[in-house]
Amino acid sequence: MSHLKSRDTSFESISPAEFFYRNRQMAGFGNPTQAVYSTVRELVENSLDSCDDARTYPLVAIEIQNVKSDIITVKVSDNGTGVPPEHVPQSFGRVLYGSKYSLQQKRGTFGLGVTMAVLYGQITTDSPVIVHTRTQNSNGLLYRLLVDVENNLPIVESKEELHRIEIGTTVIVQLKGDLKRAQDRIIEYLRLSTVSTPHATFTLKIDDETHLDSGGWSKTLPEPITPSKPHPRSVDMEVLRRLISKHGEKNLDDFLCSSFQKIGRRSSARFLQFMNMKPDHIISELTRDELAILARALRKFDGFERPDSKCLSTIGKGEFLNATTSVFNVKQTEYAWRGVNEWQGNPFVIEAVLATGDEFPRSDIPTLYRFVNRVPLLYDSSNDVFTRVLKRVNWSRYSISQSEPVALFIHLCSTKIPFKAAGKQSLASIPEIENEAYQLFKDLGRKLGKINAKSRRSVRETKKMREYSKSFRQIARFSAALAGYTEIPSTDSLVKQLFEVDSDE
Amino acid sequence: MSHLKSRDTSFESISPAEFFYRNRQMAGFGNPTQAVYSTVRELVENSLDSCDDARTYPLVAIEIQNVKSDIITVKVSDNGTGVPPEHVPQSFGRVLYGSKYSLQQKRGTFGLGVTMAVLYGQITTDSPVIVHTRTQNSNGLLYRLLVDVENNLPIVESKEELHRIEIGTTVIVQLKGDLKRAQDRIIEYLRLSTVSTPHATFTLKIDDETHLDSGGWSKTLPEPITPSKPHPRSVDMEVLRRLISKHGEKNLDDFLCSSFQKIGRRSSARFLQFMNMKPDHIISELTRDELAILARALRKFDGFERPDSKCLSTIGKGEFLNATTSVFNVKQTEYAWRGVNEWQGNPFVIEAVLATGDEFPRSDIPTLYRFVNRVPLLYDSSNDVFTRVLKRVNWSRYSISQSEPVALFIHLCSTKIPFKAAGKQSLASIPEIENEAYQLFKDLGRKLGKINAKSRRSVRETKKMREYSKSFRQIARFSAALAGYTEIPSTDSLVKQLFEVDSDE
Repeated sequence: MSHLKSRDTSFESISPAEFFYRNRQMAGFGNPTQAVYSTVRELVENSLDSCDDARTYPLVAIEIQNVKSDIITVKVSDNGTGVPPEHVPQSFGRVLYGSKYSLQQKRGTFGLGVTMAVLYGQITTDSPVIVHTRTQNSNGLLYRLLVDVENNLPIVESKEELHRIEIGTTVIVQLKGDLKRAQDRIIEYLRLSTVSTPHATFTLKIDDETHLDSGGWSKTLPEPITPSKPHPRSVDMEVLRRLISKHGEKNLDDFLCSSFQKIGRRSSARFLQFMNMKPDHIISELTRDELAILARALRKFDGFERPDSKCLSTIGKGEFLNATTSVFNVKQTEYAWRGVNEWQGNPFVIEAVLATGDEFPRSDIPTLYRFVNRVPLLYDSSNDVFTRVLKRVNWSRYSISQSEPVALFIHLCSTKIPFKAAGKQSLASIPEIENEAYQLFKDLGRKLGKINAKSRRSVRETKKMREYSKSFRQIARFSAALAGYTEIPSTDSLVKQLFEVDSDE
Repeated sequence: MSHLKSRDTSFESISPAEFFYRNRQMAGFGNPTQAVYSTVRELVENSLDSCDDARTYPLVAIEIQNVKSDIITVKVSDNGTGVPPEHVPQSFGRVLYGSKYSLQQKRGTFGLGVTMAVLYGQITTDSPVIVHTRTQNSNGLLYRLLVDVENNLPIVESKEELHRIEIGTTVIVQLKGDLKRAQDRIIEYLRLSTVSTPHATFTLKIDDETHLDSGGWSKTLPEPITPSKPHPRSVDMEVLRRLISKHGEKNLDDFLCSSFQKIGRRSSARFLQFMNMKPDHIISELTRDELAILARALRKFDGFERPDSKCLSTIGKGEFLNATTSVFNVKQTEYAWRGVNEWQGNPFVIEAVLATGDEFPRSDIPTLYRFVNRVPLLYDSSNDVFTRVLKRVNWSRYSISQSEPVALFIHLCSTKIPFKAAGKQSLASIPEIENEAYQLFKDLGRKLGKINAKSRRSVRETKKMREYSKSFRQIARFSAALAGYTEIPSTDSLVKQLFEVDSDE
């Protein structure tokens, strides 16, 4: 083996901010069009999460201004909780930092997006983000912040007290972006957001002109949700290790009952019997092999109940149907849902609305609108698990060609969303989710089939009714002539009665 | 506005290891099939990069053993440089750490994949990675390592001296994986790796049975490549800030000439004139506004040459054609390339081989094989920029239906690859890359058209030749009879001459 001129290799470490700075296309900031879209999206999602925390009806105002040629400012204001002063710098100037990491449904998940918007603004226009926020405990503070990319730390350029009338947050990012190409997508995103968060109202102004002022379809706040403990089937060695470092002094029985959801004394006892382990073992004294066996058994034991859904927030039948009808000009709608189920121990629910109407494009499969945790997904649909499932269903069986054009609005709620990339546009294939979606689509397909059969029947019946009317009128005329009547009696109500009986069957 | 029961929000920071642990589907470790595939892939790519650094012909041996049911071990050995002892723990036990960050073509790019394999093994089987490595300066060291996920730091379980016969590295990962479903993909991946790295040889053993022993098509090492300085068009505020912190005491002219590729005294002078700035300005004394103007001007000035390609390693016409022919049973091949071009200041070259042969599936568009930086990409093709370009080309114009089935092998080389996700399977849409690929595919389309026209012509000519032969033979027979000859003279050579003239035209 020749080792001619073997080169020295130099090693280094990079911060997560550096990683996403270098690979910003992964986080949805790959080009100037995407960058505008993602900036709006990330700020709006933060606002909505914050309003949910505040238990208010979200009022989210988006203003975009062209500063010069390709430089724009994006300003998003909300009436959420506001950001506590001690967390402002890190929330906006550090990636992988945030309030998103508890086991409950949230729009944001990574603590990444907003800082990416700040970072993108900074590298393209050298401008700091401006954050003006007021919480219950403050009168209003205004920050100017940048990101120290190499160290993944915020740089506070300035911080001053500035009164803000209401509690909430306003964020202004200046960036290089292609607004013209992004504009339609942004409007579509907000329009669809009023479907998935029907209790929110959005306004969009571009250069002081109002492009959208919409939402507020629902007058009730969604049920509050609560973070949950991990489900035993979500356990891997890492989860187990962390739980033990918190509860190490406990015995096995207490450990199981206090660490996990869906384990009480009885299921703990059954599980320990299944594992052939004693309940009074102190958990920190288990050997590594025993722990590995415990982790495996927790995943395999089929005696645990499904994870609970108190940490999930579906749109719900009434609200989902009402919102769809408010936003789209639809003729008929159907709703279906499946759940609560789990993938790798994470609870999930899928709900969907099928709608027919002229507004949707005519096609031999329904037009798909995807939502996860109340967020509409607009990009990268071709590679998404729901698109694949949509194609697996045999739509012709449900006479799709005979109905008005069909659309399908699908909403996945979960404590964890298997996004393919940090840009959060499409979902990886998780068998449990794929199967549930397939069943749900077929449910809705059957409902579509019934709608179409009914409308076919109604076409047939109208025809039949016309024939009956004709014959009845002739008989009436003939009988009237026979009886010597000059006035022919009306037969309309007779025919109607006949068909009312028919359709009641 | 009602602030009923507003919830407290808790903030926290997570390490990049934690981020990828939670979102492992983004890094190619979403399910047990992918996990096996990605483990093999990441280890093999590390080995090949290391062999390139060592300037050796890579010998990469992969051994996979079923331990029990769904638990397997993956062992990969190479004859590369070996890993210097002081870097072993971090290289295998820390994400975003590696030797991949210089401006030159590399297979690995993120310093992520191998640690992800270690992490996946650890959380599914609780086993440490075993690394046995020898460099020029050591006799051999054996490590057992784990990842401290919460802190993104390696945990060294043990470290001992152990002789290794040759310089190089052996890595053993134990993980939960679905080998049966991954096996074909792994074999395909290695087979295609012999196309893109034709000077490498791979062996694959599964449970001691040899499944593949292939490669070494090329007997010459690729030209060594050298890292480059950034191109002026790749500058953003972040790049500029970093360069200035290194070169702050220099004047503008010296700064430009020493910091960037493709800027010498003359282009520096022209650029400074374009910007209306004085060459003797001390760079650290520029105001922030001036710096922003400088960054913009560097990106906009069209007087800089294209980036250089000394940092890129194409397969090359001869090697690419030879490798394709060695691996596939092809009838005809064509090669084309385009470059060097740039995207956001990053140099790139695209090369491609078009091949016809029975082995490929028949279709109205070519079967696409994608390679980037000598790495075959097997998953997620539907959303890839090259797939989109392939569909944009009107292949029927090149009579694709009249030829043998067609395959297209495309190879993108760049200092930076715009992967959509950290799992490195598909490319985001970068207009410059998309356009170049489109032109390249059309070039090859035209070549295919010529092949097909030629073969159509040859069918026509054969037919014509037969007609001529028949007529000539009749004339000869007739003339012979007229002249009273009993022997009819042969006309074959006459016809042949006629058609030789024809096809020379």
